[in-house]
Order: sequence, then structure tokens, then C-alpha cells
Amino acid sequence: MEQNVNFDYQRGERTGIPEAIFCEGKTKETILGLLEKFSSEGAPPVLFTRLAADIFHDLKRKFQKQYRYDETAGVAFRQPLNQEIYGKVAIVSAGTSDANIAWEAAKTLEYLGIRTEVFEDCGVAGLWRLQARLAEINDCQVIIAIAGMEGALVSVLAGLTPRPIIGVPTSIGYGVCEKGKTALRSMLSSCAPGISVVNIDNGYGAACFAAKILMTFSSIQP
Amino acid sequence: MEQNVNFDYQRGERTGIPEAIFCEGKTKETILGLLEKFSSEGAPPVLFTRLAADIFHDLKRKFQKQYRYDETAGVAFRQPLNQEIYGKVAIVSAGTSDANIAWEAAKTLEYLGIRTEVFEDCGVAGLWRLQARLAEINDCQVIIAIAGMEGALVSVLAGLTPRPIIGVPTSIGYGVCEKGKTALRSMLSSCAPGISVVNIDNGYGAACFAAKILMTFSSIQP
Amino acid sequence: MEQNVNFDYQRGERTGIPEAIFCEGKTKETILGLLEKFSSEGAPPVLFTRLAADIFHDLKRKFQKQYRYDETAGVAFRQPLNQEIYGKVAIVSAGTSDANIAWEAAKTLEYLGIRTEVFEDCGVAGLWRLQARLAEINDCQVIIAIAGMEGALVSVLAGLTPRPIIGVPTSIGYGVCEKGKTALRSMLSSCAPGISVVNIDNGYGAACFAAKILMTFSSIQP
Amino acid sequence: MEQNVNFDYQRGERTGIPEAIFCEGKTKETILGLLEKFSSEGAPPVLFTRLAADIFHDLKRKFQKQYRYDETAGVAFRQPLNQEIYGKVAIVSAGTSDANIAWEAAKTLEYLGIRTEVFEDCGVAGLWRLQARLAEINDCQVIIAIAGMEGALVSVLAGLTPRPIIGVPTSIGYGVCEKGKTALRSMLSSCAPGISVVNIDNGYGAACFAAKILMTFSSIQP
Amino acid sequence: MEQNVNFDYQRGERTGIPEAIFCEGKTKETILGLLEKFSSEGAPPVLFTRLAADIFHDLKRKFQKQYRYDETAGVAFRQPLNQEIYGKVAIVSAGTSDANIAWEAAKTLEYLGIRTEVFEDCGVAGLWRLQARLAEINDCQVIIAIAGMEGALVSVLAGLTPRPIIGVPTSIGYGVCEKGKTALRSMLSSCAPGISVVNIDNGYGAACFAAKILMTFSSIQP
Amino acid sequence: MEQNVNFDYQRGERTGIPEAIFCEGKTKETILGLLEKFSSEGAPPVLFTRLAADIFHDLKRKFQKQYRYDETAGVAFRQPLNQEIYGKVAIVSAGTSDANIAWEAAKTLEYLGIRTEVFEDCGVAGLWRLQARLAEINDCQVIIAIAGMEGALVSVLAGLTPRPIIGVPTSIGYGVCEKGKTALRSMLSSCAPGISVVNIDNGYGAACFAAKILMTFSSIQP
Amino acid sequence: MEQNVNFDYQRGERTGIPEAIFCEGKTKETILGLLEKFSSEGAPPVLFTRLAADIFHDLKRKFQKQYRYDETAGVAFRQPLNQEIYGKVAIVSAGTSDANIAWEAAKTLEYLGIRTEVFEDCGVAGLWRLQARLAEINDCQVIIAIAGMEGALVSVLAGLTPRPIIGVPTSIGYGVCEKGKTALRSMLSSCAPGISVVNIDNGYGAACFAAKILMTFSSIQP
Amino acid sequence: MEQNVNFDYQRGERTGIPEAIFCEGKTKETILGLLEKFSSEGAPPVLFTRLAADIFHDLKRKFQKQYRYDETAGVAFRQPLNQEIYGKVAIVSAGTSDANIAWEAAKTLEYLGIRTEVFEDCGVAGLWRLQARLAEINDCQVIIAIAGMEGALVSVLAGLTPRPIIGVPTSIGYGVCEKGKTALRSMLSSCAPGISVVNIDNGYGAACFAAKILMTFSSIQP
Repeated sequence: MEQNVNFDYQRGERTGIPEAIFCEGKTKETILGLLEKFSSEGAPPVLFTRLAADIFHDLKRKFQKQYRYDETAGVAFRQPLNQEIYGKVAIVSAGTSDANIAWEAAKTLEYLGIRTEVFEDCGVAGLWRLQARLAEINDCQVIIAIAGMEGALVSVLAGLTPRPIIGVPTSIGYGVCEKGKTALRSMLSSCAPGISVVNIDNGYGAACFAAKILMTFSSIQP
Repeated sequence: MEQNVNFDYQRGERTGIPEAIFCEGKTKETILGLLEKFSSEGAPPVLFTRLAADIFHDLKRKFQKQYRYDETAGVAFRQPLNQEIYGKVAIVSAGTSDANIAWEAAKTLEYLGIRTEVFEDCGVAGLWRLQARLAEINDCQVIIAIAGMEGALVSVLAGLTPRPIIGVPTSIGYGVCEKGKTALRSMLSSCAPGISVVNIDNGYGAACFAAKILMTFSSIQP
Repeated sequence: MEQNVNFDYQRGERTGIPEAIFCEGKTKETILGLLEKFSSEGAPPVLFTRLAADIFHDLKRKFQKQYRYDETAGVAFRQPLNQEIYGKVAIVSAGTSDANIAWEAAKTLEYLGIRTEVFEDCGVAGLWRLQARLAEINDCQVIIAIAGMEGALVSVLAGLTPRPIIGVPTSIGYGVCEKGKTALRSMLSSCAPGISVVNIDNGYGAACFAAKILMTFSSIQP
Repeated sequence: MEQNVNFDYQRGERTGIPEAIFCEGKTKETILGLLEKFSSEGAPPVLFTRLAADIFHDLKRKFQKQYRYDETAGVAFRQPLNQEIYGKVAIVSAGTSDANIAWEAAKTLEYLGIRTEVFEDCGVAGLWRLQARLAEINDCQVIIAIAGMEGALVSVLAGLTPRPIIGVPTSIGYGVCEKGKTALRSMLSSCAPGISVVNIDNGYGAACFAAKILMTFSSIQP
Repeated sequence: MEQNVNFDYQRGERTGIPEAIFCEGKTKETILGLLEKFSSEGAPPVLFTRLAADIFHDLKRKFQKQYRYDETAGVAFRQPLNQEIYGKVAIVSAGTSDANIAWEAAKTLEYLGIRTEVFEDCGVAGLWRLQARLAEINDCQVIIAIAGMEGALVSVLAGLTPRPIIGVPTSIGYGVCEKGKTALRSMLSSCAPGISVVNIDNGYGAACFAAKILMTFSSIQP
Repeated sequence: MEQNVNFDYQRGERTGIPEAIFCEGKTKETILGLLEKFSSEGAPPVLFTRLAADIFHDLKRKFQKQYRYDETAGVAFRQPLNQEIYGKVAIVSAGTSDANIAWEAAKTLEYLGIRTEVFEDCGVAGLWRLQARLAEINDCQVIIAIAGMEGALVSVLAGLTPRPIIGVPTSIGYGVCEKGKTALRSMLSSCAPGISVVNIDNGYGAACFAAKILMTFSSIQP
Repeated sequence: MEQNVNFDYQRGERTGIPEAIFCEGKTKETILGLLEKFSSEGAPPVLFTRLAADIFHDLKRKFQKQYRYDETAGVAFRQPLNQEIYGKVAIVSAGTSDANIAWEAAKTLEYLGIRTEVFEDCGVAGLWRLQARLAEINDCQVIIAIAGMEGALVSVLAGLTPRPIIGVPTSIGYGVCEKGKTALRSMLSSCAPGISVVNIDNGYGAACFAAKILMTFSSIQP
Repeated sequence: MEQNVNFDYQRGERTGIPEAIFCEGKTKETILGLLEKFSSEGAPPVLFTRLAADIFHDLKRKFQKQYRYDETAGVAFRQPLNQEIYGKVAIVSAGTSDANIAWEAAKTLEYLGIRTEVFEDCGVAGLWRLQARLAEINDCQVIIAIAGMEGALVSVLAGLTPRPIIGVPTSIGYGVCEKGKTALRSMLSSCAPGISVVNIDNGYGAACFAAKILMTFSSIQP
């Protein structure tokens, strides 16, 4: 009885998003093995997410240097996909504690060949911070809005912009924040239309969704 | 075996808030009986809340005219408590659907002899509506902020005002709004300090809490 | 003390989506009043959602005929917004019980001046039904996928298409379906990237989000 | 006061499934003691589940070599039950992260003297992986289908096969996956009939249920 | 824009279970229309479940008499499938309140051409009731066990029989019974192996699962 | 600002149960300090619960030997209360994993001067184990029944005995067992009357409740 | 196929509590049939609970007059059990809204031949009401304490009395009261030992438990 | 791409409460960096909360001595705000386990320049402890009441005092206490009016809310 592992290499072709490897919950050995395997020139493109710094730094130097690795984001890849994508994604976060999710989204988009602009620390407790950046945010075609606790940033932003907003609730907070469930329900319950939401802490998923939008419109651009 | 009903008439003296009768879930007969009983001149002051219009209008005319009844609020009382209270309470609501709770709070405060100012329809989907009224709101000493769905109004307001805010989540919304639980958790999770919260749809409780604040400071006023 | 109702007429200009009126939970009198008020030529454009047939049909004939009303969708409006929008939205539903939500989305998009194609009864219990329509679905730029129960349609579709998918969980099902919460969590937990989700039964919200995508790319089209 | 431990040695005779020892939550000392006790020739047959590798490897060598131990499965037993069982069980899993549960089921069945075929990595994000193996899967009499996250594999499979499917939700995933509860509810809510479900991560229970089916039909075979 | 309804007529061939129509939540008009449509000789076989007596009795007499309808079960069909199936299913219920679910299962099996034996009122509050029928129950090849409240019947039965047990939690009970969720979790948590479970009140699903077992072994019988 | 600690020494006199110290969550230093403080002859009687062995064994030898400490129970006290109590409590547990809770109850009762009989490993997966001990159990006046997972033991026992049963759900199990919540709800939902329940893992509380029963009847015994 | 209904007439003998019929959820026809059946002299004793007044009053007069029926309690029985039971049960309730549950308990005990004393309206918002009755309450051997909302009455009482307290949470309240779940959890979490709890609104169950205590001590009384 | 951190230095001016830094979940490096940064004379005032002792004690001595640090509270600040505030806050806690939250509130108020009085160990299991301190408590203008488990202290206190009470549920307790959720719901469900509530363990938030009350009335004091 041996394990049959089926990598779905055609996924990129079929859906626009190549396979990614979610490292959380996998053993160090498994992760290091995969990093080695996909480090060579000919290997198909793969994105590693939730990759802890202490694991990555245990990878042999010669393999490490094949990868771009961002510690805040916990993301590694060999090189961005080589595609010409129209437009830009705004990544707006409520607080400094949301940084790892914001950068997971940013680095995933970088890997997919898409431009981003990151606007951190725009939480509604100080509204002026959001209002000061609004014109720049509206210059992007899609907004990823990231917030924990009560997630009010997303509602407020939706009342101010004509752009589609992808809400990412984060697991920041304690007590009734319930590890992000309150932010999630809050975003889904928003009184302002034009919001859709991904799983808690799913910066990667928000990036893929934003990418699918931009890819769709780039492919039909003359 | 007979039922022993203990009205707690000393409660007003002990806590500042006389006994109130919550009508929801009581039979029509019981409610009409109580309305008759407390309609006479000598009866102790009592506040009826969640009193449906169709029940109140079935009360005999001679008893009906002893009461001030507000249909939106579902609140009835014979006359306001005769006390000199310093200050004013701002009642700010997010949407028209929150009206019954906003007015339950307003009428309870009226009964307790406290001045109020009501600011309806200030939800964050159109931020300018709140910002336009901010100076007036800040002229009050205590704010009751009422919102359903994701309840973001409360967080936004807390970032803009130095006044204490009592959040009242309402059961407005569907799906993950979960009959007010999302608004409740959202308010408790707020990223902005200076908020405390009462039960879902509890306009009465918020009013009592606000009243206790103003009564405390009135009693020690020179 | 009179109620201050603040219609947010500038919302359309600011966010691209004019104000809508959610009728569920409002009294018949309120709804009929609003339908009358917005029926005249000069009135600003308004969309009524969750408008029950028996209420609409009690509206005076002369006002009724000012509106386009769809009973399955529970949606009424005077005339579509007059704007030139590029592209088309695919609305894919799992079963016949999801029809009212699917058509709420379709009619909202019609009102916003956006073309749609509706693909009903494509649930995964008979996979061939989805696979047979895939090419047509991919001809649209955005997909709204609607399903109750376990909502597996959305995951399966995301593995087959390069288009962004907006999942709408519906409250179809019993027991652990928990009025749509299982479909909601299932869609958010999807193993396939490129999905984002709106509140349970929120066909209107999905349509607004899809509209914001198409409006964004139409406005920047040469 | 001494502890009275009642091993239920007749259980095998009564129900077809001999007693098993679930090691999770037991102290290392207790587990090692039980492993020693049941290692001798004359001891009744016992299955150890959720047995961590570091505990097993601390067992004295002479006892260790009495057992067949599978690290992925966390399962140990002395020798398979000696019975002639008709048929074969297909074990189908969605992703590599489900391997420990898949092999817990497989090893439990091996212990009970039942043949299995394991099909890993058949998640619906790449449907072709499942469709390519369907004929082989249908050659088995019972299917155990294992998936975490949204568990859509089980619904899809139920629409494709005439075989009974035992769903095993796994605790794979984060956020709203809620440690397997979303996969569990999703499988129970499935739109496709012919599925029943066991507890989260309960590969052992699924195997026992499958075994009871095959044993029933073997015992009545001519 | 017209609705595209896709009946999946090949489902019976593919999975052994022909399409069924779940009437709960459908309008009376829709149900009566479907009952008429499928009442003719040539129509494909269809099972109606959760069909309320008052709706069925409003069907025109000439159509009514085409159907076998059981009021307790809420099930209607034209005639049983014509197939030779080996074996028998025991349907064991805890209390009289579980009757509608027990008979939903029994009638579904009757429609699928499978023999059943029904054992009602065997709840564990009076254990002797179960023990008195055990030999008869064990004469069947598969057991469907139906219970609300705490669902202990299923655990007790699993400790007494070598047959596979399909647990059906029912929504009987109040307070913490939580409309069947306690019985569901209780069955899934059972200390006795050899149980799998379907959705709350899903007598139909349990019957389909049992049928798939018997069909599988009938098809391979010499 | 110094901390005011109010030990409630009169509690024993007022309620029959002297104050106890719940050690879980307290720091090692705090616990050792309290153990020292109450170790002297003149100190009021105190019961320590959830006292981990590694903490107790770090207590200075001269203090240690003042206490009776049971490691399974996690309970320590200086000497039993000196009172003559009529009757005996049966402590019945479902499995070996419930031992720490069963002995927490037993040792608490020993401290309160009450006789107990412990019946371990009587879970319903092997009903004969319970039935074999029933006469002995009925010789006690009060039964404490302890079970995790689905907690069916309590329902079954309530159908067999005329004695009052105090159910103690334990946090044994995984997945939907939800750390004892399923056993708790199951016991509260029991179809058999004559059961009441305490918090999850609360062997101490069950013992106090049983003690209050026996103390009440002892005090009025002639 | 006919329904086999097994009344468990030996239950009274075995457990001290004869079978009872819970009417909620049963059809009017079924209830009237059972009331007729058990109205004759020779019929075994049966208690009807949750029996609505409008149903009882539709029973034929000649059967009606065979029963004692209490409308507040919703309880009917032919005559109390003829047994000599030592002691008395105190039934303490928090508010007038808890009356139906308080009297369900009182009437069940009356049926079982046990004396009760009812203390209504003793909620903690006016502590003096409870303290004034404490001596009388302590004259009983067992206390049933009934409260909705936050259920604090039970904790407070447990700190004041040496008697065992059976808590009955009621479904009184709105919002986070969650139909009695908050009162239930609150009672189970009580900081005061000597409390055990039954299901929400289960006055009947509390009475049976109290009865089992008194019966046990009466049977062994010299 | 560099991170943009926006400290909201105007918050104090706008809302009366300067920015605070919640240390839980931040890395040691980040916290030490911030402590250094804000230790100098000219730096704006900042409050550190949830600051673990082992982290604070790793700060360089010269920075450490710039701060007032309280280990029980986990709170550090350079010096209290220099403002003249009228009145005093009573901090009442139920048990010794609530000390860290009680002192988090006390130290936050000290930082904001507000006087406090702390009353520990006043839980309702020994009512006399609370009643003995009532006059002193009523000498304060605002009460912060802190309790875990079932949180009954808050209800009892609200029935005894005319002062506004801010409830702080704590995560003390096990099983159904659910890490403070039961205390939270219990406080929100209280039968006594005049209570509002903050998030679980949110001593800081309660202090800010109390401060806003006192600041409001100080600013308008002649």
C-alpha cells in the first residue's frame, strides 16, 4: 500500500490559478521536501503559503536562494508568473495586527504577476486615516479590505467607493471576537452593498479572487 | 395554593428606576388587568414596555385616556416622574427599521423625566449623515447608539466623540445577522474604546442605564 | 419629536449603486406608501426587493403599472438605469428551490443595466448538467453561483472555470442545513480558490458586487 | 477503594468488533502498560488507535516486534483477525492532509481481515482525478469517503456511484472550517442520497461500520 | 428569460436511486402540478416525500387514485420499483413521536422494492422493550434506528447487535434537544462502533443508504 | 491599593459545604502558599480540587504529610469533616477515561464524611456490565453517574432504578463530542425522568449536591 | 404493517415514576383519544403534561370531570398516587412569567402524592423578597428553583441554604437569553455548590427528581 | 512595498482616550521596540495593556524605570494624564481569579487620572461580603463589576444600587462557562435594569467607558 499523490498541474491552465501548497499543519520534513522538489528550473510554478520562517530557514542554502520568501506574509515562490495583467489591486487593512494577512494577499498577487498598493492601519477608530487615502484607493480596480475585531472598515469603505470590495476577516481580537467569526459575520451582514467575503485569515483566497477578476478583463482587452 | 405576586415598589427608591412591566409574552387579559390596576391617581408609577397597539386599543376608553401611549415605541405610562435631571441623552439610530427601539429608549427616558434628542437614519453606508449631526450629538452628555445588521455605526461614532456610548444592537437583518447577535458581538468587539452594550433590542435597558448616569450626576450637582 | 428620515440619494453617484428598499419586515402601509412616492416620473430611481406579491397587488392600478415587478424574484423597479455596461453575468443555481434568489440577482442586474444569463438546476448530484453548460458559463465575465444544502456546486465550479465566482448560499434544506449556514460555511471553506461569498439568500448583494466589477471595467474601457 | 476495570471481551462475539483502545488522552505509562499486557500469544485480540509514534517507539523492543504498527495511521495490532470476509472497501480521500484518517480506516479494516483499496488526493478542485478512478472504486462494495474543508467530494461521489458511501469529515482547514464541523454538516446536508456519516476524524468508526456490512453479507453467503 | 428545469432522469441508472421530490417548502400549486405530471402510465418513476395530507387530498380524484399515499409517512408513489432485492431492513424507533420518520423510511424502502420490518416504541427508558425484539431485529441485514431527545437507543443497540446501524436523529424534544441536534451529536459521539448517521429527520436518506447496501449485495449474488 | 481577599469561612455553617479551593488556573506559587497556610492544626477545613500532582509534590515534605492527596482525583484535604451522615452514594462511571472525575466526586464525599461505592467501566456499549451491578447500586440512596461522549449511561440507568441520579458529563471524546457539551445536552435531554445534571467534569459539584441530600435527611433523622 | 405501541406500565414499579404523556406536538385527536382511554376507573395512573386548555376543554364533559386539570400548569391527572411520602418540596420562582413551569412542577408533585410550598416572584432584582421567605424555604427538604433570563436566583439561593437545589431554567426573555439557554448555562456555571439542573422549562423533570429523593428516604424511614 | 503605520495621535484630543497598545499577540521584539520608542520624555502618552511580566522585565533597565508597571494588571505607562477629574470609580470583583481584570481596569483609570476604589472577592455565594461594602460602593459615581462563571454579582448589585454598572465578564470557569461567554450572556440578560456590558476580560474597555462618563461631567462642572 503506497500513497498516491496527484498534483493537479493542469489547474493553472483550467482556472488561471496554479496549485499552491498550504504549509500549516504539514510536518517540517514534508515542507522541506516539497521546497527542494520545486526549487529546480524545470519544475512547475508553485506558491507556498503559511510557511513559517523557522522552517524556511532550515532549508539548505542552495535551495533557499531559489526562492523569494517574505516572512511577514509567510509566502515563498520561485518567480512570478510571466503574464501581462491589466489593472491594480488596493489592499487596505485596519490595523498593524492584520499585517501578515495583508502581505499574504500582496505577495500572492505579486506571484500571479499583478500590481498592488498596500494601505495599512486605516481602521475606523480614526476615520481620517481612511478618508485621506480614498482617492488613491479608488485608482485601483479591485479592493481587498482586511480587518479583525468588528470589521467595520469594510462597511465604511463600501459606502465610500464604487469599486468591488473583497472582505477578509482576520482572527485578531479576543472574547466575542471569536477568532475572526465576528468580523466575518459582520462583513457578511454589512448594510452597504458591493462586498463579498472570503474565509477568516484567507489573504491567499482574496488574492486569487481578485486575480481572476483582473485576468478575465485582461484576456478580453484588445 | 394561591399565587403570591410581589411587586417591588421600593425598587425606585433603592435603584432610581421604578418597576416596569414587559408586556411581550403576557396574555392580553393580564396586560389589560394591569393597565386598569395602575390607571388610578393613587397608583404607584409604572412603565409598560413592548405593549402592542391592538392590545392597548382594546383597553376601555376611560383607562386609555389615563395613559400616554406611543405606538412606535410600544411604551405607555401615566405621567413622567417628577424630577429635575441635569443633561440630555442623544439617541442615534442607523436606519428606519431601528425606529421602534430608538423610540422605546426615548419614551422610557421621557417617563424618567430626562431630556432626549433623536437622530435617526445615520448608518455608515452614508457617512455624511452622521458627520453632519456630530456637533449636535456632542452637545448631549450620553449617547445611545442603535443599529442592527453589522452595527458599525457604534464603532465609527466612538472614534469621533468624547461622550460615553451605550450600544443597542437590534434584531434587524437576515441570514448571518442572526436576529441581532452579529450586531451585538460586533459592538462588543469594537476597535474603539468607550462603548458598552445592552441586550439585543433592549432600548429600555439602555435608557435606564443612561438615566442612572444622569441621575447620579444630578444628585451631586450643587 | 418627529422622525427624521434621511434618504441617501447621492449613494448612486458615490458608489455606483443607488439606494434600494428591502421590504421584508416593513409594514404593508409603509411599503405601499414608498411605492406610491417613487412611482412618479421625476422620482429618483429606486429598487424594491423582497416585495411580496400580495402587497404589490394591493397597490393602486395606476401606480402598479409604473413598475416592472417579478413575482419569483420579489423585485420591482420603474425602469432600468440607463448606462452602457460591458460584459455579462452568469447566474448558476443548484436546484429549482433556489429560483427566487437566482431571479432576485437577475432582476437586480437587469435594473442596473447589466446583461445576464441564467442556468438553473445545475446541482452536483447530476454533474453532467453543469458540465454541459460550462462553455456558455465561461462566455460570461462573472459568475454568481447559488446553492443551498451543502453548496458543493460552488467548489466544483471553481475547479472548472477561470472566472471569478460569487457564492450565494440559500436557506434551502432542513436539520443541519441550519437555514443556509451550512452552505455558507461550506462555500467559505472551499478547497478551490477564486470564490467569495455574500450573506445567505442575498441575491441582491451578489448582483451589486458583480455590477461593481463590470462597472469598474466599463468605465475604463476606451 | 480500588478501581474496577471491566474489559468487555465478549464484545467481538456479540457485535463482530472486538474491543479497541483509543490512546489519545491516555498517559504514556498507561499505554505502554496495555501494549505489554496484550503482546503475549494468549492475549485476546486488541486494536490500538491514535497511538503516537514517539510512544510506540518507547515500548521495549521485544514487545514492539509483536505488533504491526503504522505511523501514518497511528494504529497497532498483533495480527489480523482470522476470518474469511467477502468483498472489498474503497477508501477515497480528498487531499494529502487526510492521509492519517484514510490509513486509520485502512489499517482497522486490515486488522478485521477485510480487503481495501485506497484512492488518495481525489478532491473536487480537480474533478478529473475522481472521474479517472471511478470504475475501480465501483468495483468495491462499500466506499469510505474522507474529506475536510467543505467536504464536497462526498456529494459529488454520491451522484456518480451506486455504492453506499460512508462519509468521514476531517479536521483539516482553518477559520470557518471549524475543525471539521463544516465538513460534517456539509456531508449530512448533501443533496445526493446514499450517504451516511461518522464523527469527525473517525476513520476507525467508518471502518467498523463498513466491516459490519461485509461481515453481515459474508455470514449469509452460501 | 425562462426557467430551465433539468430533471435528472438518468440518476436511477447511475446511482440506483431514481429522483425524488421533496415537497416541503414548495407551493401547493407546484406540488399538485408535479403529481399530475407524473401520474400517467408512461411517466418515469418518482417518489414524493414530505407531502402533506391536505395537499394530497386536494389533488383531483383521478390523479389521486394513481398513487399509493401514506399519511403518517407523508410519502406517495405510483408503484414500487420492480426489482428483486435480497434481504430485509429493520426499522427501530424510540417513541411514538418518531412515527412519521420511521414510516418515511419504511415507505421509501417499499417503493424501492425492499422488505422492511418496523419495531416502534423501543426507547431505552424501558430497556426490556428493545431486548424482547432483539432476535427479530438481528434477522434483518441492516438496521435503521430512529430516535429524538438524547438518542441513546442507537448506542445501546450498537452494543447488542452485529448488524450495521444507520442512525436517524429526530427533531423530537424541547430546550437543549435543539430540534434534533442533540440526538444527532449524541449518535455521532457514540461509544459503540458500527453506527453511521444521516441528517435530522432524514428517514428518506437512511432508506436510500440501506437500499444501496442491499442492492449492492443483490447485484453480486449468484 | 492592596488586594482584599475575603475567605467565606461561615459558608460551611450556612450551607453545609465549607469553602473549597479550585487550583486549575492558579499559579503554582499561589497554590503552594495556600497549602502551607491551611496545613496547620488550627486552620479551618479546606478542600483543594484540580490539584496537579507535580505541584503537590513540590510542597515541602512537612506540609505534604499533613494532607491526604489522591492523584487520580487531584484532591487534597487535611482530614474528613467529623459528622455522622446517614446513607451512601453510588458513583457509576462509563469508562476508564472518566476515572479522574469519578474519584474527584468520591474523594470530595470522603472529605465531607460520606460513604461511597464506586462502580467503574459500566458504559452501555456492554450493557451486562451495568445490569450485573444494579442491585448494589440500588443499595445506595443517591447515584452519581459519570459519562463522556454521548452519555447514554445516564438515560439507561434512569430507566432501571428508583434512585435520584446526578449526571456528570465529562470532556472525554473528540469531534462532535465538543469537550463534553454533547454528553451534557444528552443528559439534559434524557427521555427518562429522575435525572439532574451538573457542569462538565464537575465531580466536585455532584458530590456537594449529593452531600446536601444526605445531610438534609441525616439532620432530620431521629 | 401496523404500529406497535408499547406503553411501559411497569415503569412506575421499576423507577417510582409512572409513565407520563407529553402532549406538546401531539395532534388534538391523539390527545383526546388518550384522555378518553385513561379516564376510566380501572385504567393505570397517567399524568398528562403540556396539555393546552383549548384541547382539554374540547374533551367530552363526562371524561373531563374524571380529571383534575390545572390551566396554568397545563397538567391533568385522575387522582394522586396513594402513597405516604415524608417531607416537602419548596418551589421558588423568580418572576410571574415563570408561573406555568412552577405550577407544572407543583402539580406533578401533587400527583405523585408529595407536599409542596410555592414561593413566587423571588427574583434577585429585589433581594429582600427572597430573604424574607428563607426560613420557610429551609423548612422544606428539597428546593426547586425556577428562573429565566440570567437565572441568578439559583446561585444566590445556593449561597444561603443547606438544602439541595434543583435549578429549572425557563425560556423567559429575549435576545441573548436565547430561549432559556443563558439561564441554563448560568445555573450550570454557578459559583455556589449544591445545585443541579434539568432541561429548559422542564418543571416535570425537576418534580420527578425531587420525588425520587423523597421516595428514597421515605422507603427507608422506620 | 513598505509598511505604513499610522499612529492616531489625535485620538486623545478627539475622544478623550489616547491611543493604547494591546500587547497580546504581538512579538516580544515589537513590544520591546514600542516600549523603548515611547519611553522618552517628549513622546506622546501611551498605555500598554496585556503586557506580560517576562517581556517587560527583558526591557533594558534604563527604559524599564521610565514606566510604572503592574504585574497583576499587565499594564504599563510613563505617567498618568494630568487632568482634574471629578468623582471616583468603584471596581467590584466576584473572586480572586478576577484580579488581573480588576486591576487592568484600576490601572487604566489611574493612568487616565481618575480615582478608584477596589472591592475584591464579593461574589454572591457569600452575599454578606457584598452587602457589607454597599455604602462604600455607593459613594462612587460609577461601578465596574467584574465576574466570571455565571456572573450573578452584576444582577444582584444592580438591584441594590442607584449607580450605573458596567459589567465585565471574565473568562474564569470551565465547561459551560465557555471562556466567559456564559457570564457575558448572563449579564446582558439581567433581570435588573441599569447594566451595560463590555467584551470578555475587557477591563481596559470598562475603564475607558467609565472615564468618558467622569470626563464628560468634569468638563461641564462649573
